[in-house]
Amino acid sequence: MNLRGVGRVLGFLLLVTAGSLLLPVAVDLIYGDGDWDVFLLSAFGGAVAGAGLMWLGRRNPELRHREGFAIVSLGWIAVGVLGAVPFVGTGAIPGITDAIFESVSGFTTTGSTIMTDIEAVGAEHHAVLFWRSLIQWLGGMGIVVLALAILPLLGVGGMQLFRAESPGPSPDRLTSRISATARLLWGVYVLVTALEALLLWLVGKMSPFDAVCHSFTTMATGGFSTLDGSVGGFGSPAVEWIIIVFMFLAGVNFSLHYLALTGRAGAYWRDDEFRFYSLVILGASALVLGTILPTGLFAGLETNIRVAIFQVVSICTTTGYGSADYVLWPPFTHTVLLLLMAVGGCAGSTGGGIKMMRVLLLMKHALTEMRKLVHPRAVITLWFNERAVSPALATNVLGFFLLFMTVFIAGTLLLTLAGRDIVTAVGATAATLGNIGPGLGLVGPTSNFAFMTGIEKWLLVMLMLIGRLELFTVLVLLIPATWRKI
Amino acid sequence: MNLRGVGRVLGFLLLVTAGSLLLPVAVDLIYGDGDWDVFLLSAFGGAVAGAGLMWLGRRNPELRHREGFAIVSLGWIAVGVLGAVPFVGTGAIPGITDAIFESVSGFTTTGSTIMTDIEAVGAEHHAVLFWRSLIQWLGGMGIVVLALAILPLLGVGGMQLFRAESPGPSPDRLTSRISATARLLWGVYVLVTALEALLLWLVGKMSPFDAVCHSFTTMATGGFSTLDGSVGGFGSPAVEWIIIVFMFLAGVNFSLHYLALTGRAGAYWRDDEFRFYSLVILGASALVLGTILPTGLFAGLETNIRVAIFQVVSICTTTGYGSADYVLWPPFTHTVLLLLMAVGGCAGSTGGGIKMMRVLLLMKHALTEMRKLVHPRAVITLWFNERAVSPALATNVLGFFLLFMTVFIAGTLLLTLAGRDIVTAVGATAATLGNIGPGLGLVGPTSNFAFMTGIEKWLLVMLMLIGRLELFTVLVLLIPATWRKI
Repeated sequence: MNLRGVGRVLGFLLLVTAGSLLLPVAVDLIYGDGDWDVFLLSAFGGAVAGAGLMWLGRRNPELRHREGFAIVSLGWIAVGVLGAVPFVGTGAIPGITDAIFESVSGFTTTGSTIMTDIEAVGAEHHAVLFWRSLIQWLGGMGIVVLALAILPLLGVGGMQLFRAESPGPSPDRLTSRISATARLLWGVYVLVTALEALLLWLVGKMSPFDAVCHSFTTMATGGFSTLDGSVGGFGSPAVEWIIIVFMFLAGVNFSLHYLALTGRAGAYWRDDEFRFYSLVILGASALVLGTILPTGLFAGLETNIRVAIFQVVSICTTTGYGSADYVLWPPFTHTVLLLLMAVGGCAGSTGGGIKMMRVLLLMKHALTEMRKLVHPRAVITLWFNERAVSPALATNVLGFFLLFMTVFIAGTLLLTLAGRDIVTAVGATAATLGNIGPGLGLVGPTSNFAFMTGIEKWLLVMLMLIGRLELFTVLVLLIPATWRKI
Repeated sequence: MNLRGVGRVLGFLLLVTAGSLLLPVAVDLIYGDGDWDVFLLSAFGGAVAGAGLMWLGRRNPELRHREGFAIVSLGWIAVGVLGAVPFVGTGAIPGITDAIFESVSGFTTTGSTIMTDIEAVGAEHHAVLFWRSLIQWLGGMGIVVLALAILPLLGVGGMQLFRAESPGPSPDRLTSRISATARLLWGVYVLVTALEALLLWLVGKMSPFDAVCHSFTTMATGGFSTLDGSVGGFGSPAVEWIIIVFMFLAGVNFSLHYLALTGRAGAYWRDDEFRFYSLVILGASALVLGTILPTGLFAGLETNIRVAIFQVVSICTTTGYGSADYVLWPPFTHTVLLLLMAVGGCAGSTGGGIKMMRVLLLMKHALTEMRKLVHPRAVITLWFNERAVSPALATNVLGFFLLFMTVFIAGTLLLTLAGRDIVTAVGATAATLGNIGPGLGLVGPTSNFAFMTGIEKWLLVMLMLIGRLELFTVLVLLIPATWRKI
């Protein structure tokens, strides 16, 4: 393992994060809450650490597969720690465990929170809520670049399907390709976020501050809100409909948005994953609507439709905003929502979970195996976007699914070992491993994670990271072969 | 599809079952409950139907893959229906849905029951309880033959690992090989069952009737008992320890027992699956013991150890006997038991679930995929019992796992749609799909399935069949290609 080379890239990531810490400085100066010094100091500290790491690793350019895994995992941990510093410094979140939980929940775009009174914090520390939303936005961008530009090169869980061309072994070409992809996606991301903020502000129910914060966390499918009542707290159907549309967009592979913005909008419908994603959301919304309509929990058809679609899109894209307390709904909706939590958004989106593309491939694979039994001598091919999927890629995706189940089971086991009931344990594991935010049982949408013990919080932080970084990336670091010298 | 050829084999299975119906006739004559006519009439009806089907199909010997699937699935349904007739006829179970539920639960060795007062039925209808145990025993034998002699030929979910030699395409050789294997296994099965009945009777706490009934349902990992309190109702530690040992044996691949009885006892330890199975049971027992010991629910170390091992072995082998109400134990034990329900016994045993062999292969596969990421150019082989597992076989097992998860999810969805809470829905699905018997929530070990609606019971009957017949066998019949003419 070329640790100095890894450190060089980590240093770069810390520098970028330190630069972002200057934005809340500006926000604080506008509102005059007196937190600007904490953010400035955090930025300074981060910059010094980042520059130091870059200097130490300046003569170690060679990065191979194993370094890639280390950079991705350690990178998210490093920025997570730096992001937590201002939470502790401003006193908004006094405990270190809680601050790290909130920061990692932000950077991984999970959106689980330990804040019990968000509005009270917001009244005194505008910059803290702004930073909390901003780290989700940064994390979201990081994930899109990771999924579309870096993971395909590392061969993780079928992401190779999104590799447009095979890059050569030269580190220069690799870097330049990653940068080019990142620049394009970055443009799309900024544009759509700005558009959403504008629309939310035009409705007239949100301050510019709330509009910006929510557009940050919508596009990141993060789900942090500035109100304790989440999006439902604004009491505006228009706001909810706008957010439904943008959550849906955030759950789509960003390379499709790029194609659409460059005049190839037909790319959406030609994409197998997009069609599957739309179908799942429509189907799940219909099921939830059909279940809550007869209960009379909500008055009026529009309200029922909006509540159902909002919750389905919020959970399926792994955003995690709330507009109603689904814990009170019939149990059938819980099973549907739990499944959506596991499935998650599209690959190459900011959404978490197993991803639509993988679920689609897994379903096709199961059908293929049944056909093979009837025709034992036939050659049956798996298709995705009109290309044949190689057996090696298929088993790679299957391996991903197995690991997901294993980690899911381990998380549930450990939480019940800590004495939680099964529903809460399953809900909390799904919520963090799938990067959703709220879960079921005691960690439902109107609750938060503050009551959990320190050990439980660290476990959930691990699950957020493992889930966000497509499992393999983190877990590969735990097997000895990764660290052995060649 | 050669339907007459399928009918011929179904006819044979009905004849065998009709013959077995003469045993409860003898039992009834001993106890003088006056049910002998019902059993005799059922036997006669079954024999006529069976002979008729054999006569119709007498000129259709050719059986291919697709016929194999139809025979296995329809065979279990046919004997399930015949087995239900005496339940209705004697008035012990008046409803047809309930009678079919009990009969299919028996033949699939599931052990879920709709009887609310077993002892009251036993007082008036000894033959009914005897028949209930006997169908489990017959179903258990059927499964062992199916798994070791028939499924490997059909290529279902990795069972090919147990194919000693590749049979030729000739139907004669195929039949003779199946018969030879069946005869050997039959001998082992009868011998071990007789030994257990003798030991149980020698303890002095069971009547010969109870001893025989329980040895039938132990070796089938079925779990029907003659007491409402299941095995715990006898209040005898010696009985429980004996049953622990024989449940463990019933969960082992029967070809290992055959090797051991012919002087090759070392085969046990050379078998990867057996070692894994022993390890899982030891580990799970230790976890459960460590969780219940501090609660003080049971007095004395021996009781705690016995209760923990009994429950772990009973669930893991999918027997489903109860010696205590685990619903009252801490939630961690529920997660452990739920996992054991899904894993199940060894392939080629009478146990249900995913099977140890498959779980072991899946775990090895996930690890292999991680190693491949670190060494993208290395060729990494999956090993099982010192033989390389072909990629085709590995994807076959993965396909099985995907289908299992899909059916598991579908079952849970449908039960919550019917209004059940998630824990009960998950518990009931696991209990029937894994052929265990008791579940969690409302269908825990001290409860039964009588309170469920008719639709729910039919759904669970489907799950028992799908689970028992290794999924593919039943589900293949649902895809159009199976029925198309060649």
